[in-house]
Amino acid sequence: MRYKAIVSYLGTRYVGWQRQLNGLSVQEVLEGALSKTFGVPTSATASGRTDAGVHAEGQAIHFDAETSIPTEKIPFAVNTHLPDDISMLWCEPADEGFSARFSAKRKTYCYKLYLSRHRRPLLEPTHEHIATPLDRTLMYAAAHVIEGTHDFKCFQAAGSVIKNTVRTVYRISIEVEPLTVVPRPKPDESLAGVPMPLNIIGDDIFDCEVKISVTGNGFLYNMVRIIAGTLVYVGMGKLSVEDVGAALAARDRNLAGKTLPAKGLHLISVVYDD
Amino acid sequence: MRYKAIVSYLGTRYVGWQRQLNGLSVQEVLEGALSKTFGVPTSATASGRTDAGVHAEGQAIHFDAETSIPTEKIPFAVNTHLPDDISMLWCEPADEGFSARFSAKRKTYCYKLYLSRHRRPLLEPTHEHIATPLDRTLMYAAAHVIEGTHDFKCFQAAGSVIKNTVRTVYRISIEVEPLTVVPRPKPDESLAGVPMPLNIIGDDIFDCEVKISVTGNGFLYNMVRIIAGTLVYVGMGKLSVEDVGAALAARDRNLAGKTLPAKGLHLISVVYDD
Repeated sequence: MRYKAIVSYLGTRYVGWQRQLNGLSVQEVLEGALSKTFGVPTSATASGRTDAGVHAEGQAIHFDAETSIPTEKIPFAVNTHLPDDISMLWCEPADEGFSARFSAKRKTYCYKLYLSRHRRPLLEPTHEHIATPLDRTLMYAAAHVIEGTHDFKCFQAAGSVIKNTVRTVYRISIEVEPLTVVPRPKPDESLAGVPMPLNIIGDDIFDCEVKISVTGNGFLYNMVRIIAGTLVYVGMGKLSVEDVGAALAARDRNLAGKTLPAKGLHLISVVYDD
Repeated sequence: MRYKAIVSYLGTRYVGWQRQLNGLSVQEVLEGALSKTFGVPTSATASGRTDAGVHAEGQAIHFDAETSIPTEKIPFAVNTHLPDDISMLWCEPADEGFSARFSAKRKTYCYKLYLSRHRRPLLEPTHEHIATPLDRTLMYAAAHVIEGTHDFKCFQAAGSVIKNTVRTVYRISIEVEPLTVVPRPKPDESLAGVPMPLNIIGDDIFDCEVKISVTGNGFLYNMVRIIAGTLVYVGMGKLSVEDVGAALAARDRNLAGKTLPAKGLHLISVVYDD
């Protein structure tokens, strides 16, 4: 019997989803737990790799097993063999022809960052820290330019060998949540050159968590991390909204923003139905 | 010159705020960073200890230093000597008589938990996992019983030697946020005995994050962790709202709920002004 399952992991300790010779992968740990649960070596196929340090709220996988364990009990059984940083959240029977990888229609990733003068230890494991305010109106405008069906070569890691770089980004949403703000400076204090704790003043946001969610029919290597880096550059004023359109048109990686670190990237969900 | 500062830390790696012989403390690491910054051994006093594994969004400290570094630059200087899981968020000059410990008027702690059938790896480091729905109306009612000035002996760890156990809890707030929900079961699937992903149906909440914030003028040992455990027992129906009033009146630790684990506890802020 083929099963579809949803797994979540904190990617910090892992070399990524896929088995590697150079360290511990999520796949290796999960396949170990599946094998213990079913009593025979069991392999798992994911919707796609996630890189070293990338997290998943809802990675989709499939595996084949013959078992008397009722389907709804399988996650409980598998989770007893998993560490705290990997968990199976859901399991259901799937058609024999179902492939977590090849049947996937859409994926949503979220890049999480926070804007604050100083490092926030509770956010550090899962967010990138940006120490300057960002102009969110410009970021919304740039996101709108990126949405749609385009040749996304400018958002692909340099050196990638993928030939067809046309993809569709259905939606980019940018959510902003205020962080706890440390005491505001008293009016007579001078903090020249230091961004003020302001949360939101006009277009600029600061002391905020920013979640950039990108839904698409497929993603090139590092595409979400480069899109997030490009939107951050736009928010900083290092790139204009027009520059983003020009980067797309020129298909030139050098014209886009930098690749943000893996620790801020989260695979949120994979959709299989149309 | 005396300084007041606000520091944040992820408590996972530490034996708590206070220096201990048996492991690494936040105080030891922070004092090391202060000493490097100012070039002389510098000690720091916090508003109070936090236990092993407890986190802080806004712990208040004071220290004495003679330095030419402008006050607003001190956090930047100190943070270059700190690991990612400890950070100074704010620094300001304080009166010579100011004590982070003895001048504190109020503190707010937050106990964070999540309600979900299965472990959520991204929440595990900072939240307690509860696998059953909770009745939030009953929890609100019990929180209301706990608010106020009472003898809180029933919420103090057994064996504590503190004599005066009267404290004032100004406010307990319970915030509920829905979690990402994995696919809902199809109507024809039987999941007898397994809580359904329902978020909020009537009084019961599930697939939610729950944040229990407690503001008081002082706290007994383990008091917030026992209050949170008691509210969870009320939400489960293991204790009634009346039982909570009875536990307070009887001053009996055995009548309250269990002490929840340290990893869900966060010191949010310390107030010094009236």
